[in-house]
Order: sequence, then C-alpha cells, then structure tokens
Amino acid sequence: MARELDVLVICGSLRKGSYNRAICNTLPELAPEGMRTTLAPSFEPIPIYNADIQATGFPPEVTAYGEAIAAADGVIIVSPEYNYSVPGGLKNLIDWISRLPDQPFKGKPVALQSASASMLGGARMQYHLRQTMVFLNAHVFLTPEVFVGSAGQKVSPDGETIADEGTRKVIATQLAAFMPYAEKIGAK
Amino acid sequence: MARELDVLVICGSLRKGSYNRAICNTLPELAPEGMRTTLAPSFEPIPIYNADIQATGFPPEVTAYGEAIAAADGVIIVSPEYNYSVPGGLKNLIDWISRLPDQPFKGKPVALQSASASMLGGARMQYHLRQTMVFLNAHVFLTPEVFVGSAGQKVSPDGETIADEGTRKVIATQLAAFMPYAEKIGAK
Amino acid sequence: MARELDVLVICGSLRKGSYNRAICNTLPELAPEGMRTTLAPSFEPIPIYNADIQATGFPPEVTAYGEAIAAADGVIIVSPEYNYSVPGGLKNLIDWISRLPDQPFKGKPVALQSASASMLGGARMQYHLRQTMVFLNAHVFLTPEVFVGSAGQKVSPDGETIADEGTRKVIATQLAAFMPYAEKIGAK
Amino acid sequence: MARELDVLVICGSLRKGSYNRAICNTLPELAPEGMRTTLAPSFEPIPIYNADIQATGFPPEVTAYGEAIAAADGVIIVSPEYNYSVPGGLKNLIDWISRLPDQPFKGKPVALQSASASMLGGARMQYHLRQTMVFLNAHVFLTPEVFVGSAGQKVSPDGETIADEGTRKVIATQLAAFMPYAEKIGAK
Repeated sequence: MARELDVLVICGSLRKGSYNRAICNTLPELAPEGMRTTLAPSFEPIPIYNADIQATGFPPEVTAYGEAIAAADGVIIVSPEYNYSVPGGLKNLIDWISRLPDQPFKGKPVALQSASASMLGGARMQYHLRQTMVFLNAHVFLTPEVFVGSAGQKVSPDGETIADEGTRKVIATQLAAFMPYAEKIGAK
Repeated sequence: MARELDVLVICGSLRKGSYNRAICNTLPELAPEGMRTTLAPSFEPIPIYNADIQATGFPPEVTAYGEAIAAADGVIIVSPEYNYSVPGGLKNLIDWISRLPDQPFKGKPVALQSASASMLGGARMQYHLRQTMVFLNAHVFLTPEVFVGSAGQKVSPDGETIADEGTRKVIATQLAAFMPYAEKIGAK
Repeated sequence: MARELDVLVICGSLRKGSYNRAICNTLPELAPEGMRTTLAPSFEPIPIYNADIQATGFPPEVTAYGEAIAAADGVIIVSPEYNYSVPGGLKNLIDWISRLPDQPFKGKPVALQSASASMLGGARMQYHLRQTMVFLNAHVFLTPEVFVGSAGQKVSPDGETIADEGTRKVIATQLAAFMPYAEKIGAK
Repeated sequence: MARELDVLVICGSLRKGSYNRAICNTLPELAPEGMRTTLAPSFEPIPIYNADIQATGFPPEVTAYGEAIAAADGVIIVSPEYNYSVPGGLKNLIDWISRLPDQPFKGKPVALQSASASMLGGARMQYHLRQTMVFLNAHVFLTPEVFVGSAGQKVSPDGETIADEGTRKVIATQLAAFMPYAEKIGAK
C-alpha cells in the first residue's frame, strides 16, 4: 500500500487572525487523498540571524525546524506579503535553515500560496521567495499559482478558514497538481 | 552657513567581522564635505513582527529607530545578501518601521551598498530592497551602484575597514553624487 | 507665464484594440492643467537590436525616438505585461535607445501604468521595467502605482478609452502627483 | 540502446562576435555523453509581436521555432543581459512562442547561461527569465548557475569559443547535472 505524501506547511504570519493562517487551517480538507499536511511550529522564538550566534551553535528551534523540513516529502509556504516582499520573520527562518548542515530545502518540492487584502494577493512576495529558493535548490511548483486577493472577503465569518468557493477550488487544484509533481521531482 | 546633510547608516549584518560593517566603518572618511554619517543601532533586539504585538504598542526600539530615520536627511543601507535576497533581520526592521504612524521612509533619499564573498557583491539583495522601497515611497539613489564582490580581498588586515582603493573610490563617488540627489529630492 | 510640462507617452502594445492604448487615449483628458501629453510613434518598424547593425549606424526611427524622449520633460510608459515581464517589442525599443549617445532616459522623470485582463494588472511588468530604469538612470515615479486589472471591464463600449470612474481617478491622481515630481527631479 | 537527449540551444544575441555565441559554439564539446546540442535559428526575422498580426496567422518562423522547441527534450538559453533584463529580441521570440497552440515550453526542462563584460555575468537577466518561465510552465534547472562575468577575458583569441578553463568546467558541470534533471522532470 502506498504511503502518504507528508507535507509540512509553513505560515509566514504570526498574527492570530491572519488570512494566511486561515488558508493553513483549510489545507487539510482541501488536500487530495494520499497527502497529509502538518502545520510547522511558529518561527516567533527564533532569534534574528547572526553568524556569531551560529558559531556557538544553532538554536534548538532552528535545528528542530530543519529536521521537520528534512523529514517532509514537500513543503507548502503560505505567507503574506510585507512591503512588496517576503516577511522578515519568514526570511529570518529561511536564513537560519539555509546554514544547517545538509541544508534541508535542497531538492525539496515546495509550493507557494499567499493572501492579502490587496488585489495582488501577495504575488510580489512569491517571486522574491522563488528567487531565494533557487539558491536553496528547492523545486518550486509552477502553476496554478495561488494568490488570494481581497482576502477579507474570502474567509469564513469567524475568520478561521477560507469560505470562498473559487478560492477553495484553486487551492485544491494546486494541491492536486503538487502531489504528482512532488512525487516525481522528489523521487530518489 | 549651510548645515550638514545628516545621513543615517543602517547595517544589515549583525556579525562583528562583517564585510558590510567594514563598509559602514569606512563611510565617515569617504563622505564628502558637508555630509555627516551616523551608524544606526543594531536591530538585534527587535522582535519578529507580529501585528498582535503591534496592537498592544510598538516596541520602544522600533519607535526610536523610526525617529532616527525621520530625523535624518538621508539613509544609507549597507547589507549582505542572504539567500539571494534581503536578510530577514533587516527586512524585519523595515516591516516594523513601515507600520509606524508618519512612516519615516516616506520621501526619504536612500542609497544602497552591499558586500559579499561572491562575484555578484549582493546585487540580488539590492533589487529586492529597491522594490520594497517603492512601497515605502523612499527615493532610492540610482547609479553608481555599490556592489563589493570578493569582499574578503577588499578589507584591511584587521577586517575593520575597506582597504581596496577601487572600492573606496566607487563608494566615495556614490556618496558625492548622493549628496546633491538627497538635497534635491529631499527638499521640502 | 509658466511653460507646460511636455510628457511623451509610450504605448507598449501594438494591438489596435489594446487596453493600454485605451489608457493612452484617455491621458490628455486626465492630465492636470499645465501638463501636455503626446503619444510617441509605434515601435513596430524598429528592427530587433543587433550590435552589428548599430555599428553601421542607428536606424532613423531609433534616432528620432531618442530625440523625442530627450525633448520631453517626462515620459509615461503604458504597457501590457507579456509572460510576467516587459513586452519584447517595448524592451527592444529600450535596448536601442540605451545605446544612443547622450542616452536620453538619463535623469528623465518616468511614470509607469499598465493594464491587463488579469487581477494583477501588469504589476510584474512594472517591477522589471523599474529595474531596467535603474541602469538607464531614469527617475521612476513611486506611488500611486497604476495597475488596471480586469481591464476589459474598465474600457468604454467602443474600447477606445477608459470609462471606469475608479480607474480614471487613480490615473488622474498619479498624473497630478507626477507633475511636481517631474518638475523637482527634472530641474537642471 | 538509450536514445540521446536532444537539447535545443537558443542564443539571445544576434551579434556575430557575441560572447554568448562563443558559449553556444562551445556547448557541443562540453556536453556529456548522451546529450546532443543543436543551435536554434536566429530570431532576427521574427516581427515585433502584435496580436493583430497573430489574428491573421502566426509567422512561419514562429511556427517552425515552436516546433523545434516542442521536438527537443530540453532547451538551453544562452543570453546577454541588456539593461538589467532580458534582451528585447529574445523576449519577443518568447512572446510569440507563448501564444502558440500547445505552447511548447510547457513542461520543458530549461537551463540558463549568460555572459557579459561586467562582473555580474548577466545574473539580472536570468532572474527575469526565470519569472517568465513560471508563466510558461517550463522547469528551469537550479544550480550550478552559469554567469560568465568579465567575458572578454574568457574567450579564445579568435572570439569563437570559450577558452577559460574555470568557465568551461562550470558549464560542463551544469550540463552534466542538467541531463538527469531533464530526464527526470521531462519523463512522461
């Protein structure tokens, strides 16, 4: 019997009521059969990257985070756009992860999703993140891209999940296409 | 008598032996007459941006940082490139600053410089930072751009300053051109 | 009596029914008092850039185009996004212009506008064009940015002009702000 | 017996003495066993893209070019950087190709190489081209990236091929790694 595809979900926002968190919350019900999504821990406790700290040893949160990425069959990053780019906190996580021995993004299939209140839905963030992933040797899924614009109108009344049918459909379509992509590109 | 142009210098690296810090250390002696450069404090103590924290009040370090930017006639950001983009810590600082009332980068003249061990000298970081500055309405100086590649060969033996003559010259040229640019675009 | 600000408008699309052409057609009525907008000729007859052709002399269309840019007080580029970037034809024009002696974009105030059928309204094109303009030393206006998404719903019934009130307002706002910017940054 | 991997090589420069053409000329001798590289025709005769022309039928050069891409197992684009981005002529080719029925870049493995006289070796061009390839659903090879900086010092005395040993090695390394990547990602 085929094993499941284990996908780690990284949320780029720390805000409790975040639209991107609402996407993360909705992924398990939109994932295709055979894909299991698990939310990664918050990157809030990770200190600002400093090579002098690294020289004394990686913070345990970073090591644990890297192990979670390494153990996953794929990663989905769901993030807001801050100032037309990647949130500093998410980038700081990646900066730490990138220094780990056996850098865990190497060869990893990655999908990107973003939500924002604007029409652009976080697109500018995604193209910056794609460039970062070139350096990390991660295979970023191509299309359909998931940009959730005007996100305030797409969440459920309690703000916990994505309610909008069109948005749910494009996310489900991406997840369904990401699965064979991850299996193909991630195969040893 | 004309007053001096006060320029705040933000260093994107926290590492003590950083090549970018060596640039920052060298700016006062390369600045043209009439320009005074002041190093901004470290962004290390600033927490990872979280809108829920902001809702309870800006951290005092952020408020102070914003006031320093607001008071300056111009800003120079000197930063390494991490993972083909802006260091997370520097971006996190900017993410906080961008939420301040009277966002202080608005209308501010900004110059960019970067150093790295690679041939590209941090160029990929600078173009991402330029895009962020569009949102913030900061006027980023154009050319000459300062990309210090193979930076290990350009520092003084103690690593504290930039020794390479060609590098010093391009930095001095940028500073000399930044001064009238800042005066023109920053004029009320 | 103050002279008018002469602004050259470059259309990035050759299609007769282009949404971007509809924007160009609408600019004269949205321009503030004191700004005169003039549509530049089509770049269709300009050959694909080849340094070996340049070595035998610039095509007369390129020389004339460069003179028009040089004579203008500012330039507005209105363009679609092709394949997430700048249309090849528009880029080819710029590639020729960039080789002219006394490169005419140098120091020129430039504003960007784009329309597309998608939600993003051509944003990806604009950030690539901004990067090109860094090399050319052109001063690109910051915000408000003009991204006309879902453009098919914004044009007049005959497709010749922009009818949507919100879109007309944001364009007029940009033009009104571009005028003092161009006067300030373009002043000798 | 295994068939060869057929790779189409697209040169982004039309100049006879182009450094990028020197790379193209050198690829056959650097390709690993089992990879055959074929130079694509010049894009010089292709008109500037115009949807009104397309409506009357694709130019025969475009159709033929698209068929060559479709028939190949992979594509290598070797191009200079013009004005910090993709040359207009190369982009114009891609703009036409992107409109073909059965868009031939879809699912195609693609590798990028660039040469320039500057230190950066065309890097800015490559990241713009990567963004375009997201839209086209082409799988762009990750690392090693090939940026040939200071290219005038890397060519043979007659300018026809790449003579520099370090450059030849990095190109050969990329080609050797591109081969299994193309076989894996391109497998039906």
